[in-house]
Amino acid sequence: MSGFAAKRRPIAKYRNGRFVEEEDEIALEFPLTITVNGEEFATIVCTPAHLDELVIGFLASEGAIRTCSDIKGMTIDGERGFAYVELAAGGLPAKQFYAKRFIGSCCGKSRQFYFYNDMKTAKTIVGGITVKADDCIRLMKALHERSTDFAATGGLHNAALATPDEMVVIRSDIGRHNALDKLYGYCLRHQVAMKDKLIVFSGRVSSEVLLKAAKMGVSVLLSKSAPTTLALDLADELGITVVGFLRGQAFNVYTHESRIIIG
Amino acid sequence: MSGFAAKRRPIAKYRNGRFVEEEDEIALEFPLTITVNGEEFATIVCTPAHLDELVIGFLASEGAIRTCSDIKGMTIDGERGFAYVELAAGGLPAKQFYAKRFIGSCCGKSRQFYFYNDMKTAKTIVGGITVKADDCIRLMKALHERSTDFAATGGLHNAALATPDEMVVIRSDIGRHNALDKLYGYCLRHQVAMKDKLIVFSGRVSSEVLLKAAKMGVSVLLSKSAPTTLALDLADELGITVVGFLRGQAFNVYTHESRIIIG
Repeated sequence: MSGFAAKRRPIAKYRNGRFVEEEDEIALEFPLTITVNGEEFATIVCTPAHLDELVIGFLASEGAIRTCSDIKGMTIDGERGFAYVELAAGGLPAKQFYAKRFIGSCCGKSRQFYFYNDMKTAKTIVGGITVKADDCIRLMKALHERSTDFAATGGLHNAALATPDEMVVIRSDIGRHNALDKLYGYCLRHQVAMKDKLIVFSGRVSSEVLLKAAKMGVSVLLSKSAPTTLALDLADELGITVVGFLRGQAFNVYTHESRIIIG
Repeated sequence: MSGFAAKRRPIAKYRNGRFVEEEDEIALEFPLTITVNGEEFATIVCTPAHLDELVIGFLASEGAIRTCSDIKGMTIDGERGFAYVELAAGGLPAKQFYAKRFIGSCCGKSRQFYFYNDMKTAKTIVGGITVKADDCIRLMKALHERSTDFAATGGLHNAALATPDEMVVIRSDIGRHNALDKLYGYCLRHQVAMKDKLIVFSGRVSSEVLLKAAKMGVSVLLSKSAPTTLALDLADELGITVVGFLRGQAFNVYTHESRIIIG
C-alpha cells in the first residue's frame, strides 16, 4: 500500500459548454486504526504512504510516547488498515486524559490550552534560529517545486523540515495534521535534532498545527496560508515565530518577528 | 461571542524587501466543549458564530439525535466555551460506538464505512434533483460573492444550502466540517426539507464531508476543491452526485453524472 498517493478514475469534465469523459488522478484516502497494547486508540484517515512515521508521530503528538524506544513493537497491516503498537509498560498515560478538555484557572500554565495532553507535551521554545527573509521565500518555493508529484490531485498538503539553507525531508498527506505527524515520526525514528530546524508548510496554521510544531520543538513555522487567533496566542506564549501567507516575494510575520531578518 | 469571525492583530508585513507594521484580520478559533446529559461528549474548535446550529448539526451528524425534538434543553456558555445539552431519555446511543472502527464483512452494507455510527446514519439517496451546468457555475459564483466578508482572513470555509435556482442559507467556519454541521443544524431547527436541495461548498470533499451530505439527505454536492477516492467510493454507493474543481466556467463530475445536465 505504502508509496501510493493517488488513483486514476474516469470522470466527466465540463469544459466550454460540454462534457468530455476522461481519467483523472484522485487523492487516496485511507482509514488507519491504531491499536495500543491491544486496545483501539484512534482511527485516522490518511494518505497511505510512510504509515510507520505517521503512527510514531501521532503517538508522540498525543503524548503516548516520547521517543521510539517507548515502542516495543509495531506491525502495520496495510491491507486492512490497522497498526498494532506495543508500548513498554507504563508508557501510556491514563486514557481518560486524551482529548479531555483542560480548563485553565490559576496554575501558571497558559489558559489557551484546551486539551490536558497538550499542556503536558508542548514545549516553550527558548533561543531558536534566525532565518533570512530571502531564505523563507526560497524554502517555500522549494516546497512547491518538490510537491509537483502531488499537485495532480489537488488534494494533498505538504510539510517539510528544513534548515535555513536546505530541505531535510518532505512529507505529504490529505490531512494537514498527518503531514506534520509524518515529519515528527521521521525525526524521532532517525533521531534528527529539531532545535536548529524550521517547518515549511502548505496548510493553515490552526492551534493544533501550532501545538504540533511546539511538541516537535521547532522555533519557526513558515506557512503558505492563514493562521488563526488561537494559534497566534499559543505562538506568543510558546515562543514560536509564525510566518503566514508566504506567497511569491511577500509574507506576514505574526509572532516573535526578531527571528526573521532582512537579507 | 456569537457573530464574530475575526479579530484584528498587529503584524509585520514583508513587502518589496522590507517590513511594514500593520494590523490585519485573523480568523477566530474558539474551543467549544459539548456535554450531553452532564458528560463530556466532544471538544471542537470552531468560528464562534451560530454555535446553537453547530451543536445541533454536530449531534445529528454523530447520530446522537435525529430531530430537534430529541433535545430537551440546551444552554451555550459563549464565555467559557461550553454547550450543555440535555437529551430526552433513550436519545443517546451507547457511547462505545462513537468513532469506533467498523469492520465490514458480509452484512450487505458497504465495506467503505469505517465508523460504526456512519453506517447507522448515512442514507442512500434515491431520485434527487437535476441541476443545469450553468446553475452549478452560478451557485459557486454566488457562494464566492456572499463570502467576501470572510475573505479578509483567508482562513474560513463556506458552505451553502441551495435550490438549483437560489441560495437558501450560507454558513462559515474555520473548520470544513463545522460549516456543514451549521447548515445541518439550521435545517433541523427550521425543518427545511433537504431532498430538493444541494450543497455548495468551498472545501475539499473527504469521506467525512461526503458522509455529512449523505446524512443530511442531499443528492448533489458542488465543491470548489478536490475529492478523495474514499469520498467518491461512498458517493457511488450512496447515490450522491459529486462535482469538484468548480472554478470559473469549468468543473468535473465524479459520480452519478446524470443529475448534471447541459444548459
